[in-house]
Amino acid sequence: MGYRYELYYWPSIQGRGEFVRLALEDAGADYVDVARGKRKGMGIAAMMKLMENAARPPFAPPFLKAGRLLIAQTSNILFFLGPRLKLAPRGEADRLWLHQLQLTIADFVAEAHDVHHPIASSLYYEDQKAEALRKARHFTRERLPKYLGYFERVLANARRGGNWVLGARCSYVDLSLFQLLAGLNHAFPSATRRHQRKFPRLVALAERVAARPRLAAYLASSRRLPFNDQDVFRRYPELDDD
Amino acid sequence: MGYRYELYYWPSIQGRGEFVRLALEDAGADYVDVARGKRKGMGIAAMMKLMENAARPPFAPPFLKAGRLLIAQTSNILFFLGPRLKLAPRGEADRLWLHQLQLTIADFVAEAHDVHHPIASSLYYEDQKAEALRKARHFTRERLPKYLGYFERVLANARRGGNWVLGARCSYVDLSLFQLLAGLNHAFPSATRRHQRKFPRLVALAERVAARPRLAAYLASSRRLPFNDQDVFRRYPELDDD
Repeated sequence: MGYRYELYYWPSIQGRGEFVRLALEDAGADYVDVARGKRKGMGIAAMMKLMENAARPPFAPPFLKAGRLLIAQTSNILFFLGPRLKLAPRGEADRLWLHQLQLTIADFVAEAHDVHHPIASSLYYEDQKAEALRKARHFTRERLPKYLGYFERVLANARRGGNWVLGARCSYVDLSLFQLLAGLNHAFPSATRRHQRKFPRLVALAERVAARPRLAAYLASSRRLPFNDQDVFRRYPELDDD
Repeated sequence: MGYRYELYYWPSIQGRGEFVRLALEDAGADYVDVARGKRKGMGIAAMMKLMENAARPPFAPPFLKAGRLLIAQTSNILFFLGPRLKLAPRGEADRLWLHQLQLTIADFVAEAHDVHHPIASSLYYEDQKAEALRKARHFTRERLPKYLGYFERVLANARRGGNWVLGARCSYVDLSLFQLLAGLNHAFPSATRRHQRKFPRLVALAERVAARPRLAAYLASSRRLPFNDQDVFRRYPELDDD
């Protein structure tokens, strides 16, 4: 298609693909969001076809095509893109540390998803609402402050000379932490607001990310999909905690 | 401590640490399982202390100390160890592919764990048994065959000239697939036996892994902990499906 990177993800949600989109957008990368495209050879059918026919198939979207490489798993895609987009250094120690943090973010995102789908992804929310209500109490009171407290501590430990996870330079993990807080504030506004007060570094980091010129332009554009009730982060008021 | 690698993990379960142990054991690596040690500076207290005081702290065990590096997240540890233990090639494309598979195994392991803990890790199984029974039906009938079918397809697509995920040479992902099947056969013997018939490549792969000399010696040793009801894979007969 003539683009440097082809991103494949469900076209109607932010979901896990958004962590990759933020990195591509912040870097001003030359990419196309294939499943959202209207032209020939694009759309969901193109995504499904590649998933079915690839010699090294992804288990699920998102995945990224970069030349002859086809890379799946959100954190793996970001590990690959990091140095290429200048959103990660090239040194092994820093790259592994960023990846470790990204994998912990991924664990947290999976838990946030499972709050509204504790029994099975194949069932509607309405068919597992009783279980979701019960799980939500534990999530908002135990897991949410535990994870946010961990990332606050990581920021407090970060090298002097800057406010980012790695100190002086913004990385894809900083972008992902912004997205995490955006999702939590959408899905659990009351619980997140209450806990956030204890995590000022994290809140300030998210604000700095949102103010980056390319990111701000992206967030204000139609490329940034609104949250909705098919997404990983969903606002069901009964699952929030106040 | 004079060892090349220090592994930190809960001392009484296989858990996620076992995926790392299998790689270290298969390679005959010079390592110590710190939290299982009896000597001064070892044990759980040493693990907790490092977790609390590290400048770049892990969110949870397992983690690995290798010289000055402290690396957490099972898949990240294996990504690091792979080429060093000759259980992964050095080329980027193959390393990313193996890592992608390992992350998919990690997702599957998390789902298998959540079958017995669908509401909260902080509650006893007995306090979420009704929800676990419901989740187990979906896991054994939908998720288990979907994931195993995916890995079978990966093996069918693998390069000619060998029976491993990468073709000719065994990798840490092959070891992890063995562990996955071992865990599933322990936790869900009836459902796994029924589905396995459709996945002969995967079953044969697990047998080849178990027959590797160093692995066979490890599995027969006291270093290999038995499965138990504190582990990620637990045998609760009511959650199996027949």
